[in-house]
Amino acid sequence: MSITRRAALGAGLAAALVPAASRAAQPLAGTQAPTFYRYKVGEYEITAINDGVAYRPADGFIRNAPMDELRKVLGDAFMAQDRITIPFTSLVVNTGKQLILLDSGNGDLGAPTTGSWMANFRAAGFDPANVDAIAISHFHGDHINGTRLKDGSAVFPKAQIMVSETEWNFWMDDAKMAAAPDGLKANFQNVRRVFGPIAKDVTRYAWDKEILPGITTVGAPGHTPGHTVFAVHSGNSRFMMMSDLTNNTAIFVRRPDWQAIVDMDGEMARATRHRMLDLAATEKMQVAFYHAPFPATGHIARDGAGAYQLAPVFWQSPA
Amino acid sequence: MSITRRAALGAGLAAALVPAASRAAQPLAGTQAPTFYRYKVGEYEITAINDGVAYRPADGFIRNAPMDELRKVLGDAFMAQDRITIPFTSLVVNTGKQLILLDSGNGDLGAPTTGSWMANFRAAGFDPANVDAIAISHFHGDHINGTRLKDGSAVFPKAQIMVSETEWNFWMDDAKMAAAPDGLKANFQNVRRVFGPIAKDVTRYAWDKEILPGITTVGAPGHTPGHTVFAVHSGNSRFMMMSDLTNNTAIFVRRPDWQAIVDMDGEMARATRHRMLDLAATEKMQVAFYHAPFPATGHIARDGAGAYQLAPVFWQSPA
Repeated sequence: MSITRRAALGAGLAAALVPAASRAAQPLAGTQAPTFYRYKVGEYEITAINDGVAYRPADGFIRNAPMDELRKVLGDAFMAQDRITIPFTSLVVNTGKQLILLDSGNGDLGAPTTGSWMANFRAAGFDPANVDAIAISHFHGDHINGTRLKDGSAVFPKAQIMVSETEWNFWMDDAKMAAAPDGLKANFQNVRRVFGPIAKDVTRYAWDKEILPGITTVGAPGHTPGHTVFAVHSGNSRFMMMSDLTNNTAIFVRRPDWQAIVDMDGEMARATRHRMLDLAATEKMQVAFYHAPFPATGHIARDGAGAYQLAPVFWQSPA
Repeated sequence: MSITRRAALGAGLAAALVPAASRAAQPLAGTQAPTFYRYKVGEYEITAINDGVAYRPADGFIRNAPMDELRKVLGDAFMAQDRITIPFTSLVVNTGKQLILLDSGNGDLGAPTTGSWMANFRAAGFDPANVDAIAISHFHGDHINGTRLKDGSAVFPKAQIMVSETEWNFWMDDAKMAAAPDGLKANFQNVRRVFGPIAKDVTRYAWDKEILPGITTVGAPGHTPGHTVFAVHSGNSRFMMMSDLTNNTAIFVRRPDWQAIVDMDGEMARATRHRMLDLAATEKMQVAFYHAPFPATGHIARDGAGAYQLAPVFWQSPA
């Protein structure tokens, strides 16, 4: 074993030179930094707000690839191989005139390793009372539960809530709920819990419309019927919030053909994923994902035929 | 042009649905989140503290590769192609008994886009008076100026300062200073400014020694004669702070044979870089770099023969 290698591995070394200090040791903090990140898109200031992570068993997560291959992709990304780590990061867009959210977090209904969204939002200097509008990408709980707590209270009292009409028509359809398998019924019920009290006030958007200044809806169905990504443009800058185009960029950007069990229509999700990743790579546009390692933004690079990589942003000041 | 593409590019769309709010708009923040990041290495808690970034002209930065190839590597990493962006991130290691720094930042002598180190250090809950020891990797100003301000005052009053004896013998040698080219003289003078007042109290370490509990020096010469990386071990966990093994991971991890003009002995730096990157990849050990995009830590993956990639850490809580 070379001396460098022995030193690196800490084998058989001399004692430390400095004795322990006499003052009391500083306790380990055990907590992370406030997890938000700001960047500019033209004149707009975007703030990514993290809501922690959740874990799902790796076994069975991919419909159409063997567990061995999933383990290899996870290992290549230096991630645990027995579980999928799913981070949650939604966006605040400050246009200078309006404060807009693209999705909310898990609220108080997520896994114990989530729930930091509001603390991070406040640490970033925001007040929920100042949010003007919330554009929702789709109706899974981790995207909508931040708008209404368990006790029924609305979190953003003045915010106009904007949802996909396709998503609305699907999940608010009582016949579809009645016909849904048991595993899906809870989501129908949660959609009613969140949107029922404000049903008449919710704005339902179509795709390919500028629903807020500089924010355009782009249909990206498959994950859910009305799943939507948001194109943001300000000045000459273009950006896209890819929502749930992937449930973990380390897996599905590298293997876009793999279908996650959380994609309702796996084949449609696959086709949508290819189409949007190709667009992002061709345009060399900065993108964000709801489920990418924080700060959850960067660029899509091609990596051979039909595969991609997410190049994370170079962390800097937003100015 | 497809409708998705047109929508993504924001061409010819309908007006926004929501009118501007009546309350005053929230001003853009313009500032970044407190830029620190915590992670565990065994029982130790490491906090990465960022000191901003600096820029250098890309032209002339690489001794042995044409500007076109450098531009391509920068472009592939979605970075500006006319300048090198150099971030600064040093580490606090809390062993539970001692608070140890691995290098300081630029202090008040760096570029205007640096100087956030102390604010980030304090935001992370630290007090300079509680630092027990500072292990210095080498004697460039961006690593040592944080220990002594422009006005001469010491920043960490109780800290034992530990430096490489090779580095010390080189930079404190008056004959070498006299013989040095003008461009190098300023660094000799700055070393005297920083260490002169405490020369008799500075601990000079050899390589391959455990100089602090769990912290071992590993010789990595080339960037400077005494350039040192630090192996950290706690429990069964192994980690290395790679110091200035590269001046920008986006360039020199992908092209380890390229020699930066800031490496004093380019060929030795090249050989050291290969040796250490190979070790990190073989051991699948978490590593940090002083000059990597924040949070400046991750794993080294092989990427073809003689090339590597830095896989950034998956941002999570440190617990």
